[in-house]
Amino acid sequence: VKRLSDCRITIVGLGLMGGSLAGALRGQCRELTGVERQPAVLAVALSRQLIDRGTTDLGAGLARADVVVLATPVRTILKLLGEIGPLLPAGCLLLDLGSTKAQVVARMEALPDHVQPLGGHPMCGKEVSGIEAADPDLYQGQTWMLCPLLRTTPAALALGCALVTAVGARPLVLDAARQDDLSGTVSHLPYLLACALIDTAHAVAAADPAVGEVAAGGFCDTSRVAASDVTMWLDILLTNREVVVQAVRTYQAHLDQLVGLVAGGDEVALRAALGAVREKRLEMFP
Amino acid sequence: VKRLSDCRITIVGLGLMGGSLAGALRGQCRELTGVERQPAVLAVALSRQLIDRGTTDLGAGLARADVVVLATPVRTILKLLGEIGPLLPAGCLLLDLGSTKAQVVARMEALPDHVQPLGGHPMCGKEVSGIEAADPDLYQGQTWMLCPLLRTTPAALALGCALVTAVGARPLVLDAARQDDLSGTVSHLPYLLACALIDTAHAVAAADPAVGEVAAGGFCDTSRVAASDVTMWLDILLTNREVVVQAVRTYQAHLDQLVGLVAGGDEVALRAALGAVREKRLEMFP
Repeated sequence: VKRLSDCRITIVGLGLMGGSLAGALRGQCRELTGVERQPAVLAVALSRQLIDRGTTDLGAGLARADVVVLATPVRTILKLLGEIGPLLPAGCLLLDLGSTKAQVVARMEALPDHVQPLGGHPMCGKEVSGIEAADPDLYQGQTWMLCPLLRTTPAALALGCALVTAVGARPLVLDAARQDDLSGTVSHLPYLLACALIDTAHAVAAADPAVGEVAAGGFCDTSRVAASDVTMWLDILLTNREVVVQAVRTYQAHLDQLVGLVAGGDEVALRAALGAVREKRLEMFP
Repeated sequence: VKRLSDCRITIVGLGLMGGSLAGALRGQCRELTGVERQPAVLAVALSRQLIDRGTTDLGAGLARADVVVLATPVRTILKLLGEIGPLLPAGCLLLDLGSTKAQVVARMEALPDHVQPLGGHPMCGKEVSGIEAADPDLYQGQTWMLCPLLRTTPAALALGCALVTAVGARPLVLDAARQDDLSGTVSHLPYLLACALIDTAHAVAAADPAVGEVAAGGFCDTSRVAASDVTMWLDILLTNREVVVQAVRTYQAHLDQLVGLVAGGDEVALRAALGAVREKRLEMFP
């Protein structure tokens, strides 16, 4: 089994997620290489000491890598997976950070045999994006889902787990379909809810511009994720469509139930429902 | 016009909102009295130096007040407004902190002529409640809606504005119906959305208990307000029913529209919609 400290790691894509991961891994591995299309981003990553070396050339960046991490939006990951096989060194662990896994893992199946593929999804992020927002502590204390393929060796999975724990996160190994179901409910659904809340407030603001002045902490928190990167979310929603649509339908049924209690003015039932919700929330986030 | 520094102020109810207000006003007025049913809460308020004196006797607490602030859940405010008139000194300013105003202001109309009533709603709060969570900085930088009645004199409104600015908040004067509409969209709606999200996650957790492990920052923020005090929210929802139900209906239409774009896989329209949402969010919270 390879040790992380002996590995050359290459991260493709130095946005918020890739840049943060680079900063968290640098110094814990033999060499940290960043691959980016934009030279200006490489310059920032180098000046912030998030990477040891940077290149705009994918082939050069991958040539000597023991571990490769794809840290781009999901559909760019899918595209890269179709092209990257011949460029990857033998025995290389290939991990990705995409928020949906079914299509990614399916595409990974087609990689050449000399590659060890492993799907990944760290459950963290920020509403700001780009290398400027990169934070080596981003992964600390977070859950990081890993989806091994049938072809993934135990040694490759172990190295993936070592990488995850090296940045302070907790590996959670599960299959791609289950990961997409879970992410659909706890991440993709809240994003759409936040977006619809912004749309609603904006429609009300057309009649009463004071909306902006009175929107306070509760509104701000509930809508925060609506400010995050659009391309990232577009890719997530379009690669997890059925799950997301079903999650919204389930949600709407629960919302209908709650608002029905309000409309009916059934105080006893409404108090019981809100009390149960509060208990569940405190259980999830003590 | 009375100056705040010359006023004896009495706050009825020393929970999160009342306790925080007491701490913010104490030292800026002649005397700060807290009225609470529970002696243990008074003891905490005194030991934390949030009040100058405390009493469990409503009549004694109100006897010499120049300003009275009702800081209880909305339906307790309504009940107090029906009883408190004869206990209030002549010329006294009576302000409340309830999150809905139509019923409060209607009840204030029936107060004796020697009282100056003023509806109020500070747009802040926390998901934790009680005197232990009180924070004199809670109101700093927040909007505080004020709903004067036709009978409220300009001098009484000016004193109310002075109180609001003394604790670092921004007064926003508007009528009760408009305040309830705005609050319905930016505060009461997000609370119900957060509750329905918790219910959805809980239902999914019955099939896959890993939900709790993978729920991260986005879910935590979007659901935060679901942890707040149930009695407070029950009173809010039941005294703003029509507005809240309508706000949810409007919201559901916007959510339907967004999820329709996901279901249809219309990439161009979905990107445009998400991009517009992001712009609106950044405009509201730069």
